Amino acid sequence: MAEPELTNIKSPRVKAARRLAKRAFRDRDRAFLAEGAQAVREALALPGVTVELFATAEAGTRHADIVAAARQAGVPVFGASGEVMAELAQTVTPQGLLAVCRFVHVPLAEAVPGGASLVAVLAHVRDPGNAGTVLRTADAAGADAVVFTDASVDPYNGKCVRASAGSLFHLPVVTAAPVAETVRHLKDSGLRVLAADGAGTRTLDDVDLAGPTAWIFGNEAWGLPEEVLKLADEVVRVPIYGRAESLNLATAAAVCLYASARAQRAAAAR
Amino acid sequence: MAEPELTNIKSPRVKAARRLAKRAFRDRDRAFLAEGAQAVREALALPGVTVELFATAEAGTRHADIVAAARQAGVPVFGASGEVMAELAQTVTPQGLLAVCRFVHVPLAEAVPGGASLVAVLAHVRDPGNAGTVLRTADAAGADAVVFTDASVDPYNGKCVRASAGSLFHLPVVTAAPVAETVRHLKDSGLRVLAADGAGTRTLDDVDLAGPTAWIFGNEAWGLPEEVLKLADEVVRVPIYGRAESLNLATAAAVCLYASARAQRAAAAR
Repeated sequence: MAEPELTNIKSPRVKAARRLAKRAFRDRDRAFLAEGAQAVREALALPGVTVELFATAEAGTRHADIVAAARQAGVPVFGASGEVMAELAQTVTPQGLLAVCRFVHVPLAEAVPGGASLVAVLAHVRDPGNAGTVLRTADAAGADAVVFTDASVDPYNGKCVRASAGSLFHLPVVTAAPVAETVRHLKDSGLRVLAADGAGTRTLDDVDLAGPTAWIFGNEAWGLPEEVLKLADEVVRVPIYGRAESLNLATAAAVCLYASARAQRAAAAR
Repeated sequence: MAEPELTNIKSPRVKAARRLAKRAFRDRDRAFLAEGAQAVREALALPGVTVELFATAEAGTRHADIVAAARQAGVPVFGASGEVMAELAQTVTPQGLLAVCRFVHVPLAEAVPGGASLVAVLAHVRDPGNAGTVLRTADAAGADAVVFTDASVDPYNGKCVRASAGSLFHLPVVTAAPVAETVRHLKDSGLRVLAADGAGTRTLDDVDLAGPTAWIFGNEAWGLPEEVLKLADEVVRVPIYGRAESLNLATAAAVCLYASARAQRAAAAR
């Protein structure tokens, strides 16, 4: 490495990065941590996002391409001792690569312009792992954007970033959006707004999903509150054919998003 | 409670239950732990499964119906101090109800008799949370059975039992099944065997799923080994419409199982 290796966990640079594990500091610095080769690679693919990169000697050698890409982009690369990396990383077995990144979210109007066909809205989703998994699934299903409402977890939470497996950097993400304003914008943009909830009288099998659709997903334990259900054009439930009481939130979201993707593609092919 | 409250974490009864957190002891005693009201209720619904029930005073009052059901079924109920429950439970905030249950798995031939239409096979699934989520999803999708191969996690692992949200008690589960023998039996039973893997040349959208189908799901990180892919009638991948590299295992399983359930129901309605 060109830069000297950081070995002191109390150095200002390490402390400044470390505190981004807390939301208050993330919001203040408008920055967050992305851990691991996959996330760092995706961050570097977006110009201007990566602020600095920390790499252990071992990871720097193994991922020489990533380190080279960072240098080429003018991103400072700091060697980190194993102890420093353990201090910075939020995982039990750190991969040895960690980037400080600038916030990537965009305003709702930019994330969902006219002509969007599939949007996922996370309302009251509190578990960061679930939120990241839904983000990854929405990306896979070809969604245009993912909106985190102000009652949902922070998309920059370390667990959410990791569970998204790079998808946080792939598609427009909106954060801290008021739900009523969000739904109004989605409707104005020509999307039908469906609330996914066990309270739905119609199931996924009974709804025509060929048109532009926004899905609202709720809380892991109690679903969506009445006032959000009322905002939606329709409340739809995933059918339960067996004896399970319900589906896990991320699982239900996957079934809904892929049902939409499939129906839209089938309609386009006709 | 009729029985005296257990307050000593070193009492033989508490120690005997506590060690069921380890697979070796589960296999020796052919018993496992089910935590929480939902799991205990489902266990009690299956005659002869629940060996004994531990309940804190608070949980015993809140779930008086469950305690009454246990007594009626002749299941010994033991009061447990908060300290004893914390020792027995594998969760950070125990719900206060915990049952020792007999193994519920059945032989493959019994789980999948002739006429089965949807089966999920977990091959090389190592994360117990993922395995339990797939079990819950298979139940929701109306699967006839779930098979854990000998290279997969133990379905009686505490995390798997919790993630299954009661589904472990809902449908026939097979454990430690050799994969080749499993696939042979599934084919002999008239099921088409599809391996879900990114290596598939055809996607879920291109495959006719109306007939009886068994899905094989692989490892979280590396999917299915070549020898398992070869055993299947076809290797099918979930289409990725966006930029995500792949889907989370439990998410991919949900998309596959629900696509099958939906296609089978649509065919039956024609």
